[in-house]
Amino acid sequence: MFALVTEKAYEQHRSQFDALDNEGHGLQWLRLADDGKLHGPSDAHPEVAWLSSDLFFGGILNRFFEIVEGAPDFRWLQSAAAGVDLDPYERLLNRGARLCNAHLTAIPIAEFVLRAVLDVFQDAERWRMAQADGRWEHHNFRELWRSRWLIIGLGAIGAETAHRARAFEAHVTGVRRHPTGDEPVDAMISPAEIPDALPEADVVVLATPATPETENLVDDGFLSAMKPGAVLVNVARGKLVDDEALLRAMDGDRLDAAILDVFNAEPLDPSHPYWSHPKVVLTPHSSGGGIGRWDRGAELFCDNLRRLLAGEPLVNEVTTMQLPTDLPFVTGRDKQ
Amino acid sequence: MFALVTEKAYEQHRSQFDALDNEGHGLQWLRLADDGKLHGPSDAHPEVAWLSSDLFFGGILNRFFEIVEGAPDFRWLQSAAAGVDLDPYERLLNRGARLCNAHLTAIPIAEFVLRAVLDVFQDAERWRMAQADGRWEHHNFRELWRSRWLIIGLGAIGAETAHRARAFEAHVTGVRRHPTGDEPVDAMISPAEIPDALPEADVVVLATPATPETENLVDDGFLSAMKPGAVLVNVARGKLVDDEALLRAMDGDRLDAAILDVFNAEPLDPSHPYWSHPKVVLTPHSSGGGIGRWDRGAELFCDNLRRLLAGEPLVNEVTTMQLPTDLPFVTGRDKQ
Repeated sequence: MFALVTEKAYEQHRSQFDALDNEGHGLQWLRLADDGKLHGPSDAHPEVAWLSSDLFFGGILNRFFEIVEGAPDFRWLQSAAAGVDLDPYERLLNRGARLCNAHLTAIPIAEFVLRAVLDVFQDAERWRMAQADGRWEHHNFRELWRSRWLIIGLGAIGAETAHRARAFEAHVTGVRRHPTGDEPVDAMISPAEIPDALPEADVVVLATPATPETENLVDDGFLSAMKPGAVLVNVARGKLVDDEALLRAMDGDRLDAAILDVFNAEPLDPSHPYWSHPKVVLTPHSSGGGIGRWDRGAELFCDNLRRLLAGEPLVNEVTTMQLPTDLPFVTGRDKQ
Repeated sequence: MFALVTEKAYEQHRSQFDALDNEGHGLQWLRLADDGKLHGPSDAHPEVAWLSSDLFFGGILNRFFEIVEGAPDFRWLQSAAAGVDLDPYERLLNRGARLCNAHLTAIPIAEFVLRAVLDVFQDAERWRMAQADGRWEHHNFRELWRSRWLIIGLGAIGAETAHRARAFEAHVTGVRRHPTGDEPVDAMISPAEIPDALPEADVVVLATPATPETENLVDDGFLSAMKPGAVLVNVARGKLVDDEALLRAMDGDRLDAAILDVFNAEPLDPSHPYWSHPKVVLTPHSSGGGIGRWDRGAELFCDNLRRLLAGEPLVNEVTTMQLPTDLPFVTGRDKQ
């Protein structure tokens, strides 16, 4: 069986591919280089492929899909992304191929959230300034212990965040439209119950997709229901927040800090008041940038490939039902 | 039964004392004010007492112990401190009274360690500088996921730190002379095995008391065995570290950062090179300053008081065996 991967991913995760080779599956690797050249037998067609994260940043994503869609017996695509909004996905599923997505950035996003909230709670900036000034100056600080968190969206990011917050003995309430019962939280509520939960929450984390229902979720009403001194964290999408309402709320006593990694327009305009607002902790859509995501991607691809070969259920399989109804134009092909 | 508490602690934790009163134990409160005056029946002697943390910072610690030691039927003292190095402890135990200590700062110290290590791993300072400059500049970062921690000292601080690090899927090796088997770690080793463990550790946390055996534990040999890029954290005692050796190691490529909350001499001399060293994250012995420690102290006192009244085993009871052999002079009395 021929498997398509990028040359870059092949080199970076060589040991994991070698392990697969040594297991005797009879795999042969087709390696797509940065210049678009395919290394491997010239007449070979892949049956499986790994859409590794380097493909999203290079210029060969279209070439990758040309090879995949031109392969007559293509069976399975593993993506390194959580999003299922690429144009060719629907065509692949319609011709009987299988698709798996991945949540490789949920872990670094959760680590980012914990770091950023702990930093605000401990007012670590005071220690940094004191060190810079050579001042030996103690201050007491808020603890995560027994703090109350409201995590809106309990997918992979929300769950990883909840799990870590609870290790600090925080009380976590999760919000999800369709709970599975497996969420690692102390309480689950429905979106309609958010207004009742806001006054109790010391930390509110937005970790839900942007949909027509969640757009401008954080508006004047939401913000005025928040507990004084609370911390708002947005690691989801900028569209969830009404920026004008947030700026108004921060000028009052409502919020201690807004930790914002995503924005309505990115990159954020250099003149936007968020940049210099004393209550805003701003990062450039970077919370997912943990380097472990590459290893996790390779492990998921290899694990799912073993499952495919053994006829076992795949992890994170996506069905046509889960595809967005209005696919954006992404890959350079005309939308059909 | 008369119980001695400070006026300050009584006011701050009134609801918990009210709860005790409502349980019908027949308790009466003797409240020691900041000016040394005792509020309560003038001829009353306490049988139990709470050495709350405010006593360590006010001027009435001696007065507190005069009342305790002058009480003919004194039975039990709950301290808010972990240290058992106060002069009157031995006399109290010798006359048959009981003593409990507390580990109220283990939780904020663990929160501090996680915050500080995450900050170094994420190189959050780059984001802070980029925000200050109005630059939209992404960077990838190290994850705690699958990082390896070596925690030297697995008492309350080490255990709380280990528990939280493991929630991030870090691999934690603990070091303890006499393991109980209950430590929340992936592996336990003895102090003699530290040199073998150092080359594997991404994070090394010092959380062990200063004793003749641990003084200058972190010397040239220790530091040269550490993994390049590792992070050293000292939240224990400055004496554990040979400062000259650490400065030498940081000038090489051995360490990414040294997170130092404690020092050989405190406050740290304004001319010490640690203040401005680019690899040093310096805080003024503040990692224990979480405000939850007051509530935890009140809860422990009330819980242990209930246990005492019910004839149940006390939490954190200290025996004469655990007292240091050379008690420092602390309370203003001559050492006997």
